[in-house]
Amino acid sequence: MTDTRLTPLAASLPSTIPFVAPESMEALRGAAFDARLGANELSFGPSPNAIRAMQDALSGIWKYGVPENEPLRSALATHLGVMPDALTIGEGIDGLLGILVRLYVGAGDAVVTSDGSYPTFNYHVAGVGGVLHKVAYKGDFEDPDALIAKAHDVNAKLVYLSNPNNPMGSAHSAETVQAMINAVPKDCLMVLDEAYTEFAPKSTQPQIDTSDTRVIRFHTFSKAYGLAGARIGYGISHPDIVSGFDKIRNHFGVNRVAQAGALAALHDAAYLAETLQTVAQGRIRIAQIAQDNGLTPLPSAANFVTIDCGQDGDHARALMAALNARGVFVRMPGKAPLDRCIRVSVGLPQELDVLAERLPLALGDIA
Amino acid sequence: MTDTRLTPLAASLPSTIPFVAPESMEALRGAAFDARLGANELSFGPSPNAIRAMQDALSGIWKYGVPENEPLRSALATHLGVMPDALTIGEGIDGLLGILVRLYVGAGDAVVTSDGSYPTFNYHVAGVGGVLHKVAYKGDFEDPDALIAKAHDVNAKLVYLSNPNNPMGSAHSAETVQAMINAVPKDCLMVLDEAYTEFAPKSTQPQIDTSDTRVIRFHTFSKAYGLAGARIGYGISHPDIVSGFDKIRNHFGVNRVAQAGALAALHDAAYLAETLQTVAQGRIRIAQIAQDNGLTPLPSAANFVTIDCGQDGDHARALMAALNARGVFVRMPGKAPLDRCIRVSVGLPQELDVLAERLPLALGDIA
Repeated sequence: MTDTRLTPLAASLPSTIPFVAPESMEALRGAAFDARLGANELSFGPSPNAIRAMQDALSGIWKYGVPENEPLRSALATHLGVMPDALTIGEGIDGLLGILVRLYVGAGDAVVTSDGSYPTFNYHVAGVGGVLHKVAYKGDFEDPDALIAKAHDVNAKLVYLSNPNNPMGSAHSAETVQAMINAVPKDCLMVLDEAYTEFAPKSTQPQIDTSDTRVIRFHTFSKAYGLAGARIGYGISHPDIVSGFDKIRNHFGVNRVAQAGALAALHDAAYLAETLQTVAQGRIRIAQIAQDNGLTPLPSAANFVTIDCGQDGDHARALMAALNARGVFVRMPGKAPLDRCIRVSVGLPQELDVLAERLPLALGDIA
Repeated sequence: MTDTRLTPLAASLPSTIPFVAPESMEALRGAAFDARLGANELSFGPSPNAIRAMQDALSGIWKYGVPENEPLRSALATHLGVMPDALTIGEGIDGLLGILVRLYVGAGDAVVTSDGSYPTFNYHVAGVGGVLHKVAYKGDFEDPDALIAKAHDVNAKLVYLSNPNNPMGSAHSAETVQAMINAVPKDCLMVLDEAYTEFAPKSTQPQIDTSDTRVIRFHTFSKAYGLAGARIGYGISHPDIVSGFDKIRNHFGVNRVAQAGALAALHDAAYLAETLQTVAQGRIRIAQIAQDNGLTPLPSAANFVTIDCGQDGDHARALMAALNARGVFVRMPGKAPLDRCIRVSVGLPQELDVLAERLPLALGDIA
């Protein structure tokens, strides 16, 4: 029963878990997955230096973390060539998006995103009573022109773009993204989700300019740095925007050991380079497996490959279910026409072996 | 400069860090503290089993945590004798309070607390535009009768009580707290912050009854379990109240390694028992040190002792500053008349030796 004391907004919201965890699916099916390829995690794990740093930091876990997230914040600032006050660090990009919408979106305010893009952003917008306006993808790409046009039309407070895009793996050029930033309406803030940016070509990354108040960018340690379970993401923006986060965030919310792990991961450039190479090879392997089975892999700038299964959403959903039933955890886009695809994260070589073995079987299951 | 695109509420809020971290104070003074006795952390650290469990879990930190926080939630349910759906787990009590106020407090809604009680609760209430109504302590105790009367007067959505109380260390009996629960106005929810409850006599703990929709209780792994840096707290309430948290929380916000550490800590009852004994001895030691210096220790049901310095707030602030300058990190209540006191956490025996040595020196400094 809904608690009658909830605010009208809270009462209107559903109680949901946005994504079912693979562990929950494993509990339901009564067996572990043989290949965990559904959550865009880095199966290779983080830098051994990060693991070591976290082991060392465990002896201090009885202490609260530092609310400014120092020295991580300053190290990130140096790494990015910005000032520390242009950075806000929080419990993953998810956590930071939740704060951002509270800062910029009141009940009834308009927010623009793409139909089929990141559901957790939409979840947070709904959580503050914002009104989502969704524009269609243009092929397998988010459509900057349509997003900007809609932002003007509806007087949007925020307009969201992910680059590279999840769930499609597509990425726009730096020039295209910069042109979108330049076109953001005066009273609107652009949310540039770059969770997967490390995997993408440099040519997709506009110059970071923290004197520009039109955009806030989000990066994370969950993807290329292999620390999804640590919960550390960060926002990069003009200091006037960043300082807003200190109005409402959970200042002591980041795990102290995770702070140490992220710092060590950041400093291991060699491991990151190795990761990017391994992931690039994994994308090629997944694409080959898809083609071997008559499916069409989409080009990807991220750590996953989205595979066009050539039919409609029901077909792709059936294939996903068949793969899951055969021990291969994958996910897929939620909205047509993107939902003709399944999405496969780069996993360990032996996990991709499992995929190669089970994909034809799963296709047989649903034939 | 304030960003003009912020919501009117966000624009009205200050950008603050609620507590200055000891690490920041150390950076400012150019030297480490010799005794870290200011943040009510457990200097003895968590159970070695918890450290081991976290070491083991580090190899899986590339995976997202489970959003339902299983198996921790079920283990807590068993431990408390409630159903799992009566529990919500989040990034410390701070994080959970932030969600709670969003669920129950709209702009302009009234919230009742005690003048000088937990500032982070007030911070979160302000963050949603709630109007705080503060009642005076009765001596060194929060005043349940006054809190309930005020809640009726102002038609409060939430009424807050901490038991034991921070910053004073006082605790009400289970009967007194239960009587307060029984008297909560119909449209109000009581927030019972029991962060320090493990340190307190059983006689201060009302029976947990998750069929009662009038109260939500908060516990944490930050205090008695020694995992402040891990960021895990939990709410205990009627499932209809708990399910509200799934409307807006950051489902994947809790660190995966912390989940494993909390689970192991919970299962090490022997270590907890040892901790409680050590803390009880530490309280006696701090009280003795205070008395040796002509100061008055207040009775404490928590892991700190609040010391009445016998004069006004300026005097206590000067003493706190003198202690900090001499390498002893302590904090103090922020509001008169509570601010005649300083607050000293139970630390390691050698840290209390430092306190014994430096307290007379600090008193000399300000004489």
